[in-house]
Amino acid sequence: MPIDSSVLALSGGVGGAKLCLGLSQIIAGPDLKVVVNTADDFEHLGLPICPDIDTLLYTLSGRNNRELGWGLAGESWQAMDALEALGGETWFRLGDRDLATHLWRREAISQGRGLLELTAELAQAMGVAAEILPMSAQPVRTQVHTAQGDLPFQHYFVKHQCQPEVTGFSFSGLDAALPNPQLMQLLQEAPPGVIVICPSNPFVSVDPILQLPGLWPALRDCSSPVIAVSPIVAGMAIKGPAAKMMAELGMPVTAEAVAAHYRKAYPGLIDCFVIDESDATLAPMIENQGMTTAVAATVMRSDDDKRALAAEVLRLAAAV
Amino acid sequence: MPIDSSVLALSGGVGGAKLCLGLSQIIAGPDLKVVVNTADDFEHLGLPICPDIDTLLYTLSGRNNRELGWGLAGESWQAMDALEALGGETWFRLGDRDLATHLWRREAISQGRGLLELTAELAQAMGVAAEILPMSAQPVRTQVHTAQGDLPFQHYFVKHQCQPEVTGFSFSGLDAALPNPQLMQLLQEAPPGVIVICPSNPFVSVDPILQLPGLWPALRDCSSPVIAVSPIVAGMAIKGPAAKMMAELGMPVTAEAVAAHYRKAYPGLIDCFVIDESDATLAPMIENQGMTTAVAATVMRSDDDKRALAAEVLRLAAAV
Repeated sequence: MPIDSSVLALSGGVGGAKLCLGLSQIIAGPDLKVVVNTADDFEHLGLPICPDIDTLLYTLSGRNNRELGWGLAGESWQAMDALEALGGETWFRLGDRDLATHLWRREAISQGRGLLELTAELAQAMGVAAEILPMSAQPVRTQVHTAQGDLPFQHYFVKHQCQPEVTGFSFSGLDAALPNPQLMQLLQEAPPGVIVICPSNPFVSVDPILQLPGLWPALRDCSSPVIAVSPIVAGMAIKGPAAKMMAELGMPVTAEAVAAHYRKAYPGLIDCFVIDESDATLAPMIENQGMTTAVAATVMRSDDDKRALAAEVLRLAAAV
Repeated sequence: MPIDSSVLALSGGVGGAKLCLGLSQIIAGPDLKVVVNTADDFEHLGLPICPDIDTLLYTLSGRNNRELGWGLAGESWQAMDALEALGGETWFRLGDRDLATHLWRREAISQGRGLLELTAELAQAMGVAAEILPMSAQPVRTQVHTAQGDLPFQHYFVKHQCQPEVTGFSFSGLDAALPNPQLMQLLQEAPPGVIVICPSNPFVSVDPILQLPGLWPALRDCSSPVIAVSPIVAGMAIKGPAAKMMAELGMPVTAEAVAAHYRKAYPGLIDCFVIDESDATLAPMIENQGMTTAVAATVMRSDDDKRALAAEVLRLAAAV
């Protein structure tokens, strides 16, 4: 049953998309707005690839491949197989159906449409009712600093399968980028009922969004409560390299350390930090940091799990 | 059994590729060189498409789709289906496997490789032993003049399915283009045993090659005999719009008219004009134009047909 509220979610790819799917089953159509990380975007084989946007589009339209955990359902790999036979670069697996998205985007860009506009068009074409807001119209690109030198994010993440030891991150283009103007207008004119920081990677999914010039203070200063969900559960990341990164950066691999990261980087931003039931004993320590903490079932295996966590986040927001 | 000779063939797409396949079964490896029309090339969905080059590569490597008559064997259409669902442009059908060729080429171009170099690499990757020589490194693009205005070739040929009435042709970029330097060097330093003008469309496949600055006089003046095979058989084109174009241009749709076109445009170039057995009665009239004429079985249905015509062309060259 859709409820009468509005939600602004900040999301990376797979983990964030799960919670957004849950939210989309509660919040009607465009009352759910998702600000999506674009610092993972890159150009590959001449095509503009936006992994997090596409994960949101595929997940919210029910097109996502649940077996693989990424990409499209019913995918085939004829193009990649043929490219491999030609000796082409196939480390980033572009499925045949997925290729259509990138070809469509390439064509839209060549016709002069910007990322914000064409993303809205793609969402409409896929029947996604929620609004998908790329974090910025300008390119921001994550560089992963590693013991073996700097790597563009997808090279670190896919080509090198997160193996190099991480020493830090930087986001090229960040200083010259503006937050999505629709987002800034929304915060000024019609703050949402709740702002949700999804359980996405803090360092390479959430930080690039929050560090856009002027963005996080605008989130802090608007009237909306900000609820963050920990991506670290019982010392592990549900998906992706967050836990490995934390260990390599010398941080404890705990929800508490995620809370501390957010508190130090964005003081006063988060009104409630949600940790998993299995981490309930950490709650007093996070509270001691000065951050209100809630305990919930944050591991989203089924669609029911996703909807339940989404409902709990909305309930917590109402209680702030 | 390969024979000790060398052949330079001038070819467009499907029709020319058939004869080249026959030649490739007689002439060993790089002793067969094929100069390919690139005036059909265009950029589509951000990808550089070279239809005639790819038809040669696919045909000579045995990858061609014999049922469709174009594209790759074992092709699938997931990308096109998905693109259609997104409302993208699907009038030019890019199969999933075929996409790999264009993605490979896009990447090679972005790495600074030119069309001549990357075509040689593609041929090697596909195991094509013959040398595939794009007619020019510079872009030449056929514009089809029609009663409804000018159309880029692929728009005329595929999007409008050759329906607009043709009034003429022009080749943008032609004056600034240079013939493939490897070809010019070959003609100067090591003229081939025979030059074959394949049964390709005279107006949009052969003319763009021959009209490259300096090319046809170099072909005429080198020591090699030039044998042309008529693409018009019994008043019809075996493949493509050549017959329809001739009718619309007010020409008789006959092998004789093709001979006349070549004779007027390129006087002294062709040493022997090969017509089909079914057109044998035209031979005296073509001879009366001053063009030596031979009659052969030019309709290539089977691989045996292709090899037999190739052998006959070589025999005729030896007799010139």
